Order: sequence, then structure tokens, then C-alpha cells
Amino acid sequence: MRSGRVEAFSDGVLAILITIMVLELHPPAGTGLEDLRHLGPVFACYVLSFVNLGIYWNNHHHLLQATERVNGLILWANLHLLFWLSLFPFITSWMGERSFARVPVATYGVVSLLAAIAYYLLQTAIVREHGLDSQLAAALGSDLKGKASPALYLAGILISPVSRWVTLGLYVAVSVMWLVPDRRLAPLAEHDAPRPDADAGPS
Amino acid sequence: MRSGRVEAFSDGVLAILITIMVLELHPPAGTGLEDLRHLGPVFACYVLSFVNLGIYWNNHHHLLQATERVNGLILWANLHLLFWLSLFPFITSWMGERSFARVPVATYGVVSLLAAIAYYLLQTAIVREHGLDSQLAAALGSDLKGKASPALYLAGILISPVSRWVTLGLYVAVSVMWLVPDRRLAPLAEHDAPRPDADAGPS
Amino acid sequence: MRSGRVEAFSDGVLAILITIMVLELHPPAGTGLEDLRHLGPVFACYVLSFVNLGIYWNNHHHLLQATERVNGLILWANLHLLFWLSLFPFITSWMGERSFARVPVATYGVVSLLAAIAYYLLQTAIVREHGLDSQLAAALGSDLKGKASPALYLAGILISPVSRWVTLGLYVAVSVMWLVPDRRLAPLAEHDAPRPDADAGPS
Amino acid sequence: MRSGRVEAFSDGVLAILITIMVLELHPPAGTGLEDLRHLGPVFACYVLSFVNLGIYWNNHHHLLQATERVNGLILWANLHLLFWLSLFPFITSWMGERSFARVPVATYGVVSLLAAIAYYLLQTAIVREHGLDSQLAAALGSDLKGKASPALYLAGILISPVSRWVTLGLYVAVSVMWLVPDRRLAPLAEHDAPRPDADAGPS
Repeated sequence: MRSGRVEAFSDGVLAILITIMVLELHPPAGTGLEDLRHLGPVFACYVLSFVNLGIYWNNHHHLLQATERVNGLILWANLHLLFWLSLFPFITSWMGERSFARVPVATYGVVSLLAAIAYYLLQTAIVREHGLDSQLAAALGSDLKGKASPALYLAGILISPVSRWVTLGLYVAVSVMWLVPDRRLAPLAEHDAPRPDADAGPS
Repeated sequence: MRSGRVEAFSDGVLAILITIMVLELHPPAGTGLEDLRHLGPVFACYVLSFVNLGIYWNNHHHLLQATERVNGLILWANLHLLFWLSLFPFITSWMGERSFARVPVATYGVVSLLAAIAYYLLQTAIVREHGLDSQLAAALGSDLKGKASPALYLAGILISPVSRWVTLGLYVAVSVMWLVPDRRLAPLAEHDAPRPDADAGPS
Repeated sequence: MRSGRVEAFSDGVLAILITIMVLELHPPAGTGLEDLRHLGPVFACYVLSFVNLGIYWNNHHHLLQATERVNGLILWANLHLLFWLSLFPFITSWMGERSFARVPVATYGVVSLLAAIAYYLLQTAIVREHGLDSQLAAALGSDLKGKASPALYLAGILISPVSRWVTLGLYVAVSVMWLVPDRRLAPLAEHDAPRPDADAGPS
Repeated sequence: MRSGRVEAFSDGVLAILITIMVLELHPPAGTGLEDLRHLGPVFACYVLSFVNLGIYWNNHHHLLQATERVNGLILWANLHLLFWLSLFPFITSWMGERSFARVPVATYGVVSLLAAIAYYLLQTAIVREHGLDSQLAAALGSDLKGKASPALYLAGILISPVSRWVTLGLYVAVSVMWLVPDRRLAPLAEHDAPRPDADAGPS
């Protein structure tokens, strides 16, 4: 089965998720600058989740570009990932509107943790389909970032009863860590994609 | 007429439906764990409908991949299916917010039943266009699951005045039954799709 | 310029419009059958607009399939059409929630009229780009339905102060008239689309 | 890396943004013509933002059609642009519902300014990847409109404490200025796109 429609469907869901989050950014009732300032926490959460979903789109893009074929397990692993990502508008809004209260902050971590695990499972299902000695498996290598993310989210959740700000710092740290694009898979993607200026590039 | 744009439009509608359902998951006013617990029924309904729409996407994906051409009847049979699916956010929200009250539970079954019938009609319209002795018709075979689903939904609706929990059990049973991907059409899809590693696979 | 991305963007907007209308179908506060019955007018409007947007998608699909190239004018004529179509969730909700009150019913007609005119302008811009003696122009022919729709909507608006039910009957009549797919452009589309079973079909 | 999926994702986000804005157009509680008239400011803002997002889609379309390859920087420059554009439903709704109050009007300008800067950064990142002596760089030329827009938005923000109507006039002026499609990039796009009637056109 081709990976094209899985990409298209996932892109659709991710594009909608990243966009409908703004519907939770309710325009203030007042018209002053201080009304904007009250939106601070909601806006900060919006930025964090926008970046996180952007990272997922980016990495998902690279992962599926390096994927040659999909099977039933991959389809469901992908839907499983989309399920946890679909909760981002909900937790973003809750954490923002309740000004970083303890339980919403921890819940944000739980959803982020489950999304990170779901991404790992998807990646594993794809690698299994392509073989452990495939180019894809080699390109992923030890996958340090993929293993560090769940650990950092778990640490954040555990720390949340003590200090919400350390927890939030950990969430931001994960996002910053991923903002650097996943260079491991880029060469594989270049292989597959026909380029208009097709001089032989290094692989 | 090509089936490509029908696929793209249906994917778009399904991606939006599966995603906007989360807008009905309103963040609680409180910030405690018990506020999350109150969301239980709404969340359970969200999971059920997410899985159901995922199943429809999956099966629709396989069905259209095996479809070579579409006609006007197929276009409208497809829109008819999308219409009933479009009511899922509405019934999911009603059933969840009213904590599985009798009438919402029965209504969920009615919409599910009509969607299942619409899928069957779409499938029939596609088979008719391709001929009863086509590969597609052969692959669908006796279509046991396609016939069992409406029967189970109908049973669920009729039982709902007696016990809502048996009804919900039947709804869940249908979803579990379909979670196994539709293996009948997979070989056909493989035929059509060019694979990068094009060694001759078994059909 | 290729027509592919115009199709993709328009499909996206139409898929979203047809889907977010359901967000205006608010789940009732009660849990009885009579609560569902109160939703009658809202639901009837939803069905009407779903069918209307489905017709626009269908005809837009055929029109752009027969379009070989687009220019700046066509791009803006297309956005102009999408603008009026984007008001359907608004007027659908207004007409439904106010139980077919006079002004909402007339407004529904105004938006439908302007959308029909915008479609006609888009079609004219495409025909002008391809030449009046092109296959497309010949296939459109006298375009009876395209000319009857605005006339019927205009009649509906003018009649609305006298009888809203005649007005609504005219709206439904236009939809029924268009439910028959536009056979004029189908042969052109078949020409462009490569078919797997490429026996020479009649044009 | 191909630009195809960046186009598809951006198209998706833009299609959703331009469409969900209508969800902020709440149907009035009344059913009279004067209820529609009260919607005037909200509707005017909707039109302005619809046109602005249409312009962005149009220019983005031309820019990416002339883009041969993307890198990580371009991906993030693109997401940065989408971030600011994603705030349009929020500011449109705030400015409209508060009837063009001073701070909302200035905020509209700030978001528009930041989106214009983000577009400029995206364009710069793409030109850098393709080389300053590329066709793309030559086609963009001095980019007068690209430089005038931020200046006009900045002027609008600064003038807003004095006269909101001059500010709004400047916003409208920018939109009108861009309504003329970006002819500089059109020839490049024609080069890339295979045309069915491939007679040699002027470049």
C-alpha cells in the first residue's frame, strides 16, 4: 500500500489541529491593552502547542518521506498518534485559561508523553516493515531525541506537584530540542524526491 | 472520471470531522482531578467516534484504491455517506454530555446505522460500475462484516429502552470487529500501486 | 499556471465549509425525543445547505477538470465564489435557529443568488481563457440551468414577504434541478483523465 | 526536499483559516433587517481578512511554484508565517465585535505587520537557497510592494491613537495594492508547469 494517502490524511488532520486551536483564543470582552495582557497565559500556551504540532508535522513529514510502503499496523499506529495529537487543542485551552494550574499542567505533560510514545510506536512499526538493516533504520540510528522526549515529559509530570515552572521549563526544553530539524532522515528523502536540477548530490 | 478527487475530498471531510469533534471536549471550569473525571463520558464517546471515523477512513481508503472509475451515482453515494458521518460530532457530543441517556444513545445508533447503510450503498454502486465479475466484487466476497454491522446497530437501537449498557456494548463490538483492517481489498490495492521495490508480489 | 492547486485549495475550503456547518447543530440540553424534534428546522436547513455545497463541489469539480490553465482573473473569480459559499454556515444557522423567519429566509436567497452569480462569472472567466470555440464552451452550450438558478433565487427573494414557504420551495427546486450531475462536461473530463482500462470510449 | 508537501500543508492551513473565520460571524438573535445591519462591522472585518488571506494564498502559491527545493530553514520560516496568519480569526473577530475600537484596530495592524515581515523572511530564505543570481531572485526584483506593506502597516499602527479611520484606510490600501496578482513570478511558474497545449509561450 502506498504511503501517499496516509501522508495526505495526516497532513490534513495536523493542519486542522494547528489551526482550530485559535478558536480557543477568544477575543476579550474589553478593548484595552490590559485585556490583551490578560490573554498572556492563553497565548503562551498557544505558541507552545503551535510549535509542538509544527515539530510533529515536520518529523512526520520526514519519517513518511522515507517510508516506502505501509501496512495495516502502520495505519493504526498513525491514527493512534493522531488521536493523542487531537487532544492538544483541549489541553492547550485548559492550561491557558486556568493560568498554568497544577493539574492542567500535568495533564499537558501526560498527553505530550502519550503522543511521544505513539510517535515512537509508529516509527517502530515502519522500521519493522522495512527491516532492521534498511536505510531507514540506519538513518534513525540510536534515536537519542526520540528516547529523551518521553523521559523529559515524565520528569515534568512527576515534578509538577513541586514546581509547575520547572515542569513548564522541561516542556519548553523538549520543544527547543526538536526545533532543530531531524537531519538523519533528510538524505533519505532526497533520494526519493526527483529534483529539477538533478545533478548528482551526495547521499 | 478519475477517483482521485473523490478520495481527496472525502479524506478532507473525514480529517475535519475526526478533528473538530475535539471542539466539543470543552475544558472544565475547575482545575482539579475530579474535573477531569467528570469528563469521563464525553471522553469515552470521543474515543468511540474517533475509532469509528478512523475505521471509515481506513475502509473508504481501501475501497477507493480498488476503484478504477467513478460516475455520477458514485459521487452522490459518497456524499450521502459523508452526510451521515458528518453528524458524528453532533451525536458524540449529545451522548457524552448527557452521560449516555437513553434517547441520545439510541440516536447514536440510528446515525451509525444510516452511515453503515450508506457505506453499503456506495460499495454497491462501485461494484455495479465495475461489473459483478470484476476483481473488486470477487474481493468483497460475501461481505459478512458489512452485513453484520447494520444488524448489530439495529439490535442496539431496539435494546436501548431495556438496557443502554447492552446497546453501548453492541456499538463497541461493531468497532472492535472492524478494527481488523479489511484484508479482502488489500491485494487489489497492491496491484494498482507502484511500489519502489517492485518485485512481483503475490496477488 | 496549472489548475491543480486551485482545485486542491477549493476542495479544501468546500470540505471545511460542508463540515463545520455541523458545529452549528448544537446538541439539545434535554434528552427526550421532543428535544430532537425541536431541532427539525435547524436540521432541515443543514440538509439543504449540505446538498447545495455538495452540488457546488460536484459542478466545480467538473468545471475545473475541463480547465486546462488558469490566470489571475480566474484565481480571483474562484476566491469570489468561495467567499459567498463561506457564508453558508452563517445563513444556514440563522435560518434554522430562527425557524424560517422572513428576513433570514430572504438572506439565504441573497447569498445563494450571489454564489450562483459568482459561479457564472468563474465559468465565464474560464471560457474566455480557453476561447469561445473551445471544447469547454461547446460543452457548456446554452447553460440553461446556470441561467435558471439566479432567476429562481431572485424570484424566491421577491416572494419572501408574501410567503416564506413558496420561497423555500423555490430554493429546494433549484437544488433538485442540480442534483442531476452536469453531463455536459463529463465527456471532456474523460478525455483528460487516463483510465486504467483505456479502451476508446465515445466522447 | 520537495516543496510539494509544504505547499499542501500551507494550502490546508490557509483554507482552514479563511473558512473558520466564518464561525465568528454569529447569527443574530433577532430576525429583522436591523439585526443584519448591526453585523456591519463584523462583516466588513470578515471581508477584509478574507481578502488578505486570499492574497497570501495567491502570493504563497506563486512563490512556492517558483521554488525548486526547500530546506529546514524554509520549513520553519513557512510555519512562522502560518503562525501569524493563524491569528487572523482572532483579531478579525475582536476588531469587528468591538466596532473598530482603538486597541483592536492597532492589534490588527501589529499582526498584519508581523505576517508581512514573516512573508519577507520566507521569501529571503527561499532566495538564499536558490542563489542571488537565480531566476527567482531576478523575478522578485526590487520587491517594492513587499517593502511598502510593512511600512504602511507600521504607519497605520502609529496613526491609530490619532485616527482609527485613517489607520483602517491604510490597511485597505495595502489589500488593494496586492489585489493585482504578483506578475513577477508568473513567468517562472509557467516554465515549471507542463501545459497541455505546449506551444512555446513567451517567458
